[in-house]
Amino acid sequence: MSESADRLRRIRHRMCAAEVDGLVVSSPSNIFYLSGFRGSSGALLIAERRCLLFSDFRYRLQAREQAPDFEFVEVPRRLLARMGEVAGEEGLQRVAYDPAHLTCEMKDQLAEGAPGLDLAPAEGLVEALRSVKSAHEVERIGGAAALADRALARMAELLRPGATEREIALEGEFLMRRQGAEAAAFDVIVASGPRSALPHAETTDRELLPGDLVVIDIGAKVSGYCSDMTRTFAVQSAPKAAQDIYGIVYRAQRAAAAGVRAGAVCGEVDSIARAMIEDAGHGDDFGHGLGHGVGIDVHEAPRLAKEQDAVLVAGNVVTVEPGVYVDGFGGVRLEDLLVVRAEGAENMTGSPMPPELPVV
Amino acid sequence: MSESADRLRRIRHRMCAAEVDGLVVSSPSNIFYLSGFRGSSGALLIAERRCLLFSDFRYRLQAREQAPDFEFVEVPRRLLARMGEVAGEEGLQRVAYDPAHLTCEMKDQLAEGAPGLDLAPAEGLVEALRSVKSAHEVERIGGAAALADRALARMAELLRPGATEREIALEGEFLMRRQGAEAAAFDVIVASGPRSALPHAETTDRELLPGDLVVIDIGAKVSGYCSDMTRTFAVQSAPKAAQDIYGIVYRAQRAAAAGVRAGAVCGEVDSIARAMIEDAGHGDDFGHGLGHGVGIDVHEAPRLAKEQDAVLVAGNVVTVEPGVYVDGFGGVRLEDLLVVRAEGAENMTGSPMPPELPVV
Repeated sequence: MSESADRLRRIRHRMCAAEVDGLVVSSPSNIFYLSGFRGSSGALLIAERRCLLFSDFRYRLQAREQAPDFEFVEVPRRLLARMGEVAGEEGLQRVAYDPAHLTCEMKDQLAEGAPGLDLAPAEGLVEALRSVKSAHEVERIGGAAALADRALARMAELLRPGATEREIALEGEFLMRRQGAEAAAFDVIVASGPRSALPHAETTDRELLPGDLVVIDIGAKVSGYCSDMTRTFAVQSAPKAAQDIYGIVYRAQRAAAAGVRAGAVCGEVDSIARAMIEDAGHGDDFGHGLGHGVGIDVHEAPRLAKEQDAVLVAGNVVTVEPGVYVDGFGGVRLEDLLVVRAEGAENMTGSPMPPELPVV
Repeated sequence: MSESADRLRRIRHRMCAAEVDGLVVSSPSNIFYLSGFRGSSGALLIAERRCLLFSDFRYRLQAREQAPDFEFVEVPRRLLARMGEVAGEEGLQRVAYDPAHLTCEMKDQLAEGAPGLDLAPAEGLVEALRSVKSAHEVERIGGAAALADRALARMAELLRPGATEREIALEGEFLMRRQGAEAAAFDVIVASGPRSALPHAETTDRELLPGDLVVIDIGAKVSGYCSDMTRTFAVQSAPKAAQDIYGIVYRAQRAAAAGVRAGAVCGEVDSIARAMIEDAGHGDDFGHGLGHGVGIDVHEAPRLAKEQDAVLVAGNVVTVEPGVYVDGFGGVRLEDLLVVRAEGAENMTGSPMPPELPVV
């Protein structure tokens, strides 16, 4: 069975469980997952016997190439109104939609096109499938991770006083792009000195200074799949306080990563790192969750965070990325990408993570 | 008056005309336009006396820097439910939202947070303001256009047999990024040979051949503003049929661009080019609209297309980009970016557009 046919079989199981005979898919990542289509505009209608891709004339050829399991319905505008009509013609009774993705306008159009149709909100049906990766998907994510590893090695060579965050970030991104990434998975983060204390720092023209902490957070996107990893370095010398923070984050990262396995509760994996960082007196300096799923989107299910009671299953791909951010001083974050297995996890990140703060 | 204060004044006029005392803004481009905030997650509530930006802890500092005219409301999750509560506390009666941007989930949360609140759909309130650019915005778009000009000049040097579409596209993008673009405004298109007949071709690893037509469509994004332009070249030699198509598109582009002025009806400007291409026997080979507005988004209001009865006003920034696409053979598209003035238009694209197909 082809990957696409298998996904359609599984989503139809979910539709059956949700007691609907149709599913509207409007998020680009979910459209790509189920159909292979990567155009910027389109929507799917999945019924029991038919799979339809609605888009405009621009994507006629591309749809045929990328989404061979779907019938193409060319619509100049108001795609969802036409989809509603088709749903009516097909005799569908109850169609699920995801309220997190469908806009109010799309829903209004759908209702207009099919006045008698029962529209049932159903959150995350496709995301639930996406969170468990096939061997082929793991391979693609691994390819993206390997590209980011190469970029990081090159970027580490450029970390010297006077170099700017931006030129280092660009060099890393360009290397990934030249070697086959279709894009960076997200804006490459190079956060130096006091800026390393911003968990989601924007990369700037700041020049590196001796003694700076530098957080590099980078991922590639290859064949529609993302990777994500973070390393932290010191430039020329490492202040004692920076070494201490690094050690705390390193131990928390290793311990939490060792707790990743099928059957582990997401919130409990988060707690492993969080308790260690709290015990070291930096509980207030770790303000984000421990990690997140990675796949077609760089942030997807499952989430490793406080109070998340979801259970990891084999095939989940997740980051483990504790951090300690000391306002005005600097921060450390260390992140690996793991694929969950029955007996533990396999590390997809190949870049070394030394136990002591690396000074470059 | 600051640019932001002026925009808030103008949006409040629109709110007054729409008879609402509040406005929810959830599209990232509209949030950036009204507040300056560029985080990946957030929403605005604009009331008569207060302007509020809702986001999570990650954006606490960034919100303060980028959106100084807005009060920051930190919300861990379910932003819109909290916004509904605040709207209730403020005593708002009737709040407008844009159904094209608000998801069903956001609307449900908003209604939950403020059970008595009247939610009024209002399409394109912010987009209408955005379509008329200030001098400062025109300057930023012009800067982006100048960067794309430099990239195109470099790319033209690389057009030789054996070079791949992808390496040419990357070189253009890297040049823009190194010279200060925060991103390409869209995936750079290099479409060669028969692929030049795809209006929205994806760039591939195809190697250029002598006699190929090559369509290059490129734009930069600088300080949040986009540019957009297209040129077509022939590699080493130009078949007669390619020269003919180029001449048709060139004349249609020039004539339509000469018709751009304040007061012109969008559909009529489209007709200038369309009639000429039809008269030349290629009416069926020009399947898209003549052009579109460009600003924070690379596609925004106004649209220059069939049956569009909107009227151009001074300060609109629009593309004029007719094309002829001959299936299996190749295509030509020529695109300039124009700012509409009272007496005509000013061309923001500096790259030469020779009257004969340029052979490189």
